[in-house]
Amino acid sequence: MSAVSSNPFPAPGSKAELEEGAVLSPRFGADGLITCIATDAATGEILMVAHMNPEALAKTIETGEAWYWSRSRGELWHKGATSGQIQTVEEMRIDCDQDALLLKVTVAGDGGCCHTGRRSCFYRKVEIAGGKPSLVVD
Amino acid sequence: MSAVSSNPFPAPGSKAELEEGAVLSPRFGADGLITCIATDAATGEILMVAHMNPEALAKTIETGEAWYWSRSRGELWHKGATSGQIQTVEEMRIDCDQDALLLKVTVAGDGGCCHTGRRSCFYRKVEIAGGKPSLVVD
Repeated sequence: MSAVSSNPFPAPGSKAELEEGAVLSPRFGADGLITCIATDAATGEILMVAHMNPEALAKTIETGEAWYWSRSRGELWHKGATSGQIQTVEEMRIDCDQDALLLKVTVAGDGGCCHTGRRSCFYRKVEIAGGKPSLVVD
Repeated sequence: MSAVSSNPFPAPGSKAELEEGAVLSPRFGADGLITCIATDAATGEILMVAHMNPEALAKTIETGEAWYWSRSRGELWHKGATSGQIQTVEEMRIDCDQDALLLKVTVAGDGGCCHTGRRSCFYRKVEIAGGKPSLVVD
């Protein structure tokens, strides 16, 4: 299923409007999606990076809980609907050119986020030795 | 110019290898790019979201400074080369399915990051009143 949905948000305006204006006019990419970072509202820890189509963003605004577009499953995704790890949005921010969102969330259930069972998806460090990268869980 | 560059990284393996393995095999998207978050290594503040093609990631690993792919300019981008806001990478992390990177950086120059002159690109909050979003600089 395509991520493209009807878009209830105003079309992006000029550079000045995008960067300094008060109008939320998110710039969805060619794939119909905008990048979204979720952090723990209490600790600031980065939990995950996911994507939203216009419908997911509209539902997030409407419900106060994070909805994403699952690229792997090709469907709208109410985060936590099956796992219990519902993300309540404490604060939403957008970047200068309105092509990335930041959600500060409180996570329900066991407080985790990653499908591997870890709290955060960023559980591996890229270590570089002799110019060669490798991954280490820490 | 297309973001597609030669890719020196191993092709992504199985789901288990991607999620639990020690091999950095980043999953670049159809546009040839991987999403990258930069945070302030000292404070954890989220500074920006940008993108890397394989060449940018290889140069970041090689130099210890952040290189991105500028989608707006269509070129490789050594962050800070003109502004002085060089990002020295203190730590690099990757997420579960290896399609997002996290850089913890120390910023040179005036310590800023955003082309609008702010320290972080996420200088606006999305406020929701009566179900309608608007943007507020805070």
